[in-house]
Order: sequence, then structure tokens, then C-alpha cells
Amino acid sequence: MNRITLDAARVIIHDTMAFGREKGMKPLSVVVVDAGGHVLAFERADGAPPGRFDIARGKAYGSVMLGIGGTAQRDRAEAQAYFIAAAGAAYEGKLIPVPGGILVRNDSGEVIGAVGVTGDTSENDLEAGSVGIKSVGLTADG
Amino acid sequence: MNRITLDAARVIIHDTMAFGREKGMKPLSVVVVDAGGHVLAFERADGAPPGRFDIARGKAYGSVMLGIGGTAQRDRAEAQAYFIAAAGAAYEGKLIPVPGGILVRNDSGEVIGAVGVTGDTSENDLEAGSVGIKSVGLTADG
Amino acid sequence: MNRITLDAARVIIHDTMAFGREKGMKPLSVVVVDAGGHVLAFERADGAPPGRFDIARGKAYGSVMLGIGGTAQRDRAEAQAYFIAAAGAAYEGKLIPVPGGILVRNDSGEVIGAVGVTGDTSENDLEAGSVGIKSVGLTADG
Amino acid sequence: MNRITLDAARVIIHDTMAFGREKGMKPLSVVVVDAGGHVLAFERADGAPPGRFDIARGKAYGSVMLGIGGTAQRDRAEAQAYFIAAAGAAYEGKLIPVPGGILVRNDSGEVIGAVGVTGDTSENDLEAGSVGIKSVGLTADG
Repeated sequence: MNRITLDAARVIIHDTMAFGREKGMKPLSVVVVDAGGHVLAFERADGAPPGRFDIARGKAYGSVMLGIGGTAQRDRAEAQAYFIAAAGAAYEGKLIPVPGGILVRNDSGEVIGAVGVTGDTSENDLEAGSVGIKSVGLTADG
Repeated sequence: MNRITLDAARVIIHDTMAFGREKGMKPLSVVVVDAGGHVLAFERADGAPPGRFDIARGKAYGSVMLGIGGTAQRDRAEAQAYFIAAAGAAYEGKLIPVPGGILVRNDSGEVIGAVGVTGDTSENDLEAGSVGIKSVGLTADG
Repeated sequence: MNRITLDAARVIIHDTMAFGREKGMKPLSVVVVDAGGHVLAFERADGAPPGRFDIARGKAYGSVMLGIGGTAQRDRAEAQAYFIAAAGAAYEGKLIPVPGGILVRNDSGEVIGAVGVTGDTSENDLEAGSVGIKSVGLTADG
Repeated sequence: MNRITLDAARVIIHDTMAFGREKGMKPLSVVVVDAGGHVLAFERADGAPPGRFDIARGKAYGSVMLGIGGTAQRDRAEAQAYFIAAAGAAYEGKLIPVPGGILVRNDSGEVIGAVGVTGDTSENDLEAGSVGIKSVGLTADG
């Protein structure tokens, strides 16, 4: 697979949200973006606050643009907050540097998009999104 | 209904896209926003160009914020382009004043959100989105 | 009076809205800004769409910043749309160049603030706001 | 109540300011926003500096968008400053993460808007706003 189809994006979102509900997480919001960071699909679960799109998209967009997932971004922010702040400004606010921004890689290891999950703890967001990505046979790099 | 549930948003998007395919329209992208203009759900059909989210969201967000659908916005833009340009700047670019931005009203006539459709002609975008909105028993005001 | 007090701002808003209701206008939204264009008070009538603040504030802020009311701005936009578009961008979108942006002048003719009214036709917005301004003994220059 | 009426917003603002004066607080500024974070009403007390609107609105808007009050935002900022900075950029600067941003909940516990108070210490801002919210029979979640 060299790009994420809409069908695959729907399954990723569905399985991420189903995993969250099964584990008793708070209502999740999930975005899938393409290799350019542009939105393919998004869903906000009932009960989530209205501002979830910007957080989810920032996790996914920032991951694609920097080429590293949210965990590595958080580590960089812990070490060098001003760099991540500057990158966020350079990307016009579309960068949320915490776990839950997950690169999507195909069999060849290429980045073909990213997923952004928000709603529970960052670690739970990451776990749920990784389940969704694996369910379509792709590799999660969070 | 006093708000659009995620289930309803999914049906609106599905039926809008299905109608577009049935009529031979180009690949559609569809957003559903809540009564505050905030994104509930979005899908971009395979084959659509990457920038569709901002167009769809601008149609829906602008409709909610101004309280009029895309057709009325287009008419105002034809008569007074500088007003619509200024409103778009006031809304930080989130205003696309053509048909395909459709207010969603409930049985009481209240605006509970909006749909934004883009991909084919503006008139076809409007027709497809109206079909989707009606399929969940809500009223399309485009 | 060399500045608009909060008490005066409240009366301006109240009397503008009361005039609008009396004349059967649509629900109005009214902002009062100071001589620097900064918000003193704002009210959005029940039933008005959510995006009214940015429109009202743009009318008032732009009037103060350019030193001319909304009617003169509209005339300039009709003659030279690109100038008004550029000014709006320079003021970061806070300029809505139509009637309803009204300079507030004191007895000495000094600008001590502005009022922005939106909700009905631009001409009705202007008339209602002018009534409000006069009710506190100040001069409306729209 | 499933939304904040303008009458209720006026009482919230009035009672918040009255409490502040009674307790000898500095001049307060108070905004009330709806469930989408859009401004319903705002007042800046005489003597307050001109930039109060953006602070008050940022407190209220950020609370609605994130679904947590200012106290919880401050705690998160203390623990993870870069996350709150990034969220603020994602919301285009409309996030002020300190006490005084207060979610407004109805009898069912739903968020129907928020209040933002600024002018005195953050803790006093929060106390005054909570008094205003309770005076209309709603629940303050700050």
C-alpha cells in the first residue's frame, strides 16, 4: 500500500474508537492525514469537547511534517522546549508534541500518512491509535 | 434532535457521497460541523485533491457563523464582494461563500450545525449534501 | 465626556437593541469600543447566529482605526476594493467596511470610541446604533 | 436550560462584578461565551486596562474547546508547558490557561458555555465568576 485509502482510514478510526470504548477510555477523537499531512478523515465521539479537531490534527500534521511521532516530539520538547515552540509557530500552530501523533508506515517502511488521537491520557491515545493502524495491516510509529 | 450525533454525521457523509457517485459526480469531500462550527466528522473521497478539508470546512463554518447558507453568501458576494471578503478575514479564512455550505435545521427550525460539500460544481455539491441531510430527517438550508 | 464609561456603553447597547425590536428588525448584536478600538462591552441578542461578535467588532474597530465610519468605508470599497482589502489585512481581519460601524464623538467633536451593530440590513444597523449613541448625549458619525 | 440566554449572561456579568467590588477587588472584566466558545456578552469595568477582552475571552474559549476549566489548564501547564503552549497556538492564541476560565454546566452536567474573568488574582477572578454563575442557578466548573 502506498497511500491510505478512505476505506482504510475509516477502519483505523473505527477500530481506534472501539478499542477506547472497550478499555473504558474517555470519548476519543481521531484524524487520519495523508503523506502531506492533509486531512483524509476525522471523527469526534459524542461527549468530547468541541476543540478536539485542532488537537488531533496537530498531533498528526506535526508528526508528518517533522517525520517523527508524538513520543519523540515530547522527548524533544522536554529537552528543548523552544525548538518545538518555534517549529509549532513555523507550522502555524498545527503541531501538538505529545504521544497520540502516530506515523503510518507501509511494508517498505515509507511514511504514507499519520493518525492523531486525543481524548484520554496521551499514552492511551497512542495505544488506541496504534491498534487502529495495525488493524489495516500497517505499521504504527508513535 | 438538538445536536448532530456522530452516527447521524456518518450517515450524512455516507449518503452525500453515495448520491454523488450515483450521479457521476467527481469525488466529493464532506464535513459536518456542530452549532458552533466545530468539526464533528469529515471524509475526503479517494481521488480528490489534498486541499479539500479547508474548502469543505470553510463552507460549513461560514454558514454557521453568518447564519446563512452558501447560496445566500454567493448572492451577497456577487452584490458586495468586499463585505464577504472582509467577513472571511474576520473569520480567519474559514469562509467559502458558494453553494455547498448548508445549514442543518431541526424540527423546531433551529440551526444545529452545518454541512460543507466540495468536489463537483457548487450546485451539485449543494444537491448532494441536501440529500445527505434529509436522509437523517433533518432540514437542509443551503 | 472624554471617554465612554461602562454605564454609557450599557445604555448605548440597550437602546440600540430596543430600537431594533421596536422597528421589527432581526436580532441585533452591538459592540462598544474605546478610542483605541478595544472592546468595552458587547451583547448578542438571542436568536442571532454565533459569528456576530467578529462582524460587530470589525465594524467598530475599523472605524476607529481608519477614523471614518462604515458608510465612508463602503464608499471607498465601492471605488477601490483593493485598498479596503489591504487595510483589512493590515488590521488582521478586524475591518468590516459597511454601514453599522459608527464613530462616537463628544461635544468637542473628538472621537472617543465607536459602536458596531450587525443583524439587520446595514442601513438599519446604522440607524439603530445612532439612536443608541444619541441617547447618551453623544454624536453618531456613521 | 440548554443554552445561556442573554438575560442570564447579563446577570452573570453583573453579579460577578458586584462581588468583585464588594470584596475590594480590582476592576474586573467578564465574558460569557456559548457552547461553541463564541461571545454572547462582555463588559470591561471602568479603570481596567484596554487589553482585557482577549484575556477574558481566552480563558473562556480555551475552557470550552479543551473541556476543562482554567485551574486544570494551569495544572497541566505547570506539568507540561509545551503542551499548553501548543494547544494555544492550535486555537490561534485564544487560550489563557489560568484560573478564571470557568465551564458553565446545566442540571444535566452538560457544558452550555463558559465564563472568563480577569482583573484581580486568578483565584479571585475564579471566585467572582463562580458567584455570578451560581446566581443564575447554573454550575461553575473552574
